[in-house]
Amino acid sequence: MKKLINSTETVLPESLDGFAAAHADIVALGPERKFLRRAMPRRGKVALISGGGSGHEPLHAGFVGFGMLDAACPGHVFTSPTPDQIIAAAEAVDGGAGILFIVKNYEGDVMNFDMAREITDSAVASVITDDDVAVETSTWSTGRRGVAGTLIVEKMVGAAAEQGADLETVKSLGERVNRATRSMGVALSSCTVPAAGRPTFMLGEDEMEMGVGIHGEPGRRRVKLGSANAIADEMVGAILSDLGAAKGEALLLINGFGGTPAMELYLMYNAARARLERQGIKVARSLVGSYVTSLEMAGCSITVSLLDEERRALWDAPVHTAALRWGC
Amino acid sequence: MKKLINSTETVLPESLDGFAAAHADIVALGPERKFLRRAMPRRGKVALISGGGSGHEPLHAGFVGFGMLDAACPGHVFTSPTPDQIIAAAEAVDGGAGILFIVKNYEGDVMNFDMAREITDSAVASVITDDDVAVETSTWSTGRRGVAGTLIVEKMVGAAAEQGADLETVKSLGERVNRATRSMGVALSSCTVPAAGRPTFMLGEDEMEMGVGIHGEPGRRRVKLGSANAIADEMVGAILSDLGAAKGEALLLINGFGGTPAMELYLMYNAARARLERQGIKVARSLVGSYVTSLEMAGCSITVSLLDEERRALWDAPVHTAALRWGC
Repeated sequence: MKKLINSTETVLPESLDGFAAAHADIVALGPERKFLRRAMPRRGKVALISGGGSGHEPLHAGFVGFGMLDAACPGHVFTSPTPDQIIAAAEAVDGGAGILFIVKNYEGDVMNFDMAREITDSAVASVITDDDVAVETSTWSTGRRGVAGTLIVEKMVGAAAEQGADLETVKSLGERVNRATRSMGVALSSCTVPAAGRPTFMLGEDEMEMGVGIHGEPGRRRVKLGSANAIADEMVGAILSDLGAAKGEALLLINGFGGTPAMELYLMYNAARARLERQGIKVARSLVGSYVTSLEMAGCSITVSLLDEERRALWDAPVHTAALRWGC
Repeated sequence: MKKLINSTETVLPESLDGFAAAHADIVALGPERKFLRRAMPRRGKVALISGGGSGHEPLHAGFVGFGMLDAACPGHVFTSPTPDQIIAAAEAVDGGAGILFIVKNYEGDVMNFDMAREITDSAVASVITDDDVAVETSTWSTGRRGVAGTLIVEKMVGAAAEQGADLETVKSLGERVNRATRSMGVALSSCTVPAAGRPTFMLGEDEMEMGVGIHGEPGRRRVKLGSANAIADEMVGAILSDLGAAKGEALLLINGFGGTPAMELYLMYNAARARLERQGIKVARSLVGSYVTSLEMAGCSITVSLLDEERRALWDAPVHTAALRWGC
C-alpha cells in the first residue's frame, strides 16, 4: 500500500485537522472531531446535515458552508458515522427551524441516521438518495445506492433552506431532486482502504467494472475496457432508459473517482454530452471534477439530473463551500 | 494502459472540446484549438498568456478568466505549444496595453514563447517561473523547473493586471512572486503518457521519487516510502533552507499530482503546516487540491510562497476561472 500517511489509525483525524485548518474561514471541527459545521452558523433556517463513510472527499465535508450543508459527520473510511456523531451535530446546528438529514442509501447510514433521529430532541426529517441505476441491491444497500447525485440534492436543498423554505418543503424538494437524478459509474482500478492495506477488488490489465459502486462494490459486469465513447453511450443509455425522459434540460455531472485526471474527465464529458444531445436532452448546466470519490480509484461516474425552472435556479444560487463555490 | 479515451490521437482535441463546452460561460476555444481565451475579454489591460504541455490540468486552461489569465496555449501532452499557437493567442487577446507571457522554465517552452515574442507585433514581456528547489538542471530544463508555484504567479499577476497595472509593473511583480515562491514534489507512482502507452518511469512497491518533476523527471533520490510527516519535513526543510526565511507569513499550497486523493492531501497539509509553524512561519493562506498535475501520477508537491501585504491582497482579489473561484 502506497499512501501519504503516518499510520492507518491516524489517517482520518490528521486529514480532518488539515481540512479544518485549511478552510477555517468556512468550517469548524466539532468536539472529538464528531462533525464539521459551518464556521458562521445561521439560525432560523432548516439545518441540513449529511455524512457517511470517509474516503469520498470532498463529499460531504467539502459541501459544508453557505448555500449547502450546515454540518457533515465523517465516519471511518467507508464506515457509517455513529448515531452519537449525528446527534452531536444536530445539537450543534439546530437553528430552531428543524433539521433535514440527507442520507445515502446504505444500510449502516440509514440505520444510524434513523437512530439519531429517534434520540435527538430536534424536529428531524430525512431524505434518502438512491441515484445509482447500476444495480438494484448491492453489498451494503437494500435498494439502489446513493452516489454522486447526492451532491446535487445537497446543493439544491441547501439553496432552498438558505432562502427560508420550511422543513416539509425542503424534504419534498430533496425527494423530487433525487427522483430527477440518475447516476452510473465505471472503475478502471480498485481503491485500497488504508486499514485493509490491499486493493478492495482486482481487475485485469484490460478490464473495467461497469456499474461499480463508490466503495468498489461490484456493478453490472466486468468486461474488457472499451472506448470512452462506448462507455459513455452505455452509461448514459442506462440512465436515460431509467429516467424515461426523452426531452428537456439537464445538469450533467462527470464525477472522477479520485485517480482519473481532469483530461479524461473532460473527454468523458464531451462524449456524454454528445450522447445526451443526440437524444434531445439539452445540457443546460455542467459540473466536471472529482467530487464523490472512492479514495484513489480510477474511473468516473456520469450523473444526469433533469432540470425545471425551480431546480435550475436552485443550482445557480450562491454557494460558498470548500469544494463548490459560486455567486458569493 | 488504462485510460478513458477513444484514441491516443484524439485525447487532446476531445478533452479541449469538453472543457470549452463545460465552461462556456468562462472560456472560448480559439480557431483550430490553438488556444483557450476568456469568453468575456477585457480591453485596456495587460493581457496575460500562459501555456505549456497538456497533462497538467487544470493548469493552465483552468486558470483562464477574470482575475487571472487572458489565454492559455495547450501543447500536446508534455510537449510545448508551438510559436504559431502563442502568436494566435497574442493576436486574439491583445487589448492595447501589452502582453505578459508566463512561462515555466523548460527549454521548449522558453524557446517557443521567445520565438513568438520576436514575431508578434504586440508589446510583449515575459516572466519565467522556476520554483522547484529539487534539482538545479533536469531533463528538459537548464536551471530550475517551473512547477506548482506558477499558479501563484498567475493568480497574483492576474489580479494586478485586472486592477490596471502596466506591463513593466506586472513583469516585475511576477518576478518578485516567483522569487518568493519555492516548491518540491514527491511521486509514489508514475504517470503514463497516452501516446507512449507505458509508465514514464518505474518505482518499486515500497519506493518514492523525492523531488520528482511534473513530467515524472527524476528528482533528488529514489528511496523507501516514508511517513507523511517525514516527507513533509524533508520537503518543507528543503524549501525553507532555499528561501532563507526564518519568519513571516506564507501561502501554503499542497498540490496533488492527479492520482492522490483529497484525504491524503489534507493530511500532508496538516503535516506541512505544523512544520512551517515550528519554524516560525505563519500559514496565512492555504490552497489544497490537484491544480498542477502530471496526468494520474500519485504524489504531491508542497509550495511555500512568502506573503507581504501587497501579495496577500493580490491573492485575495476576486478570481473567476474554471479551477479557482472566489470573491466574484
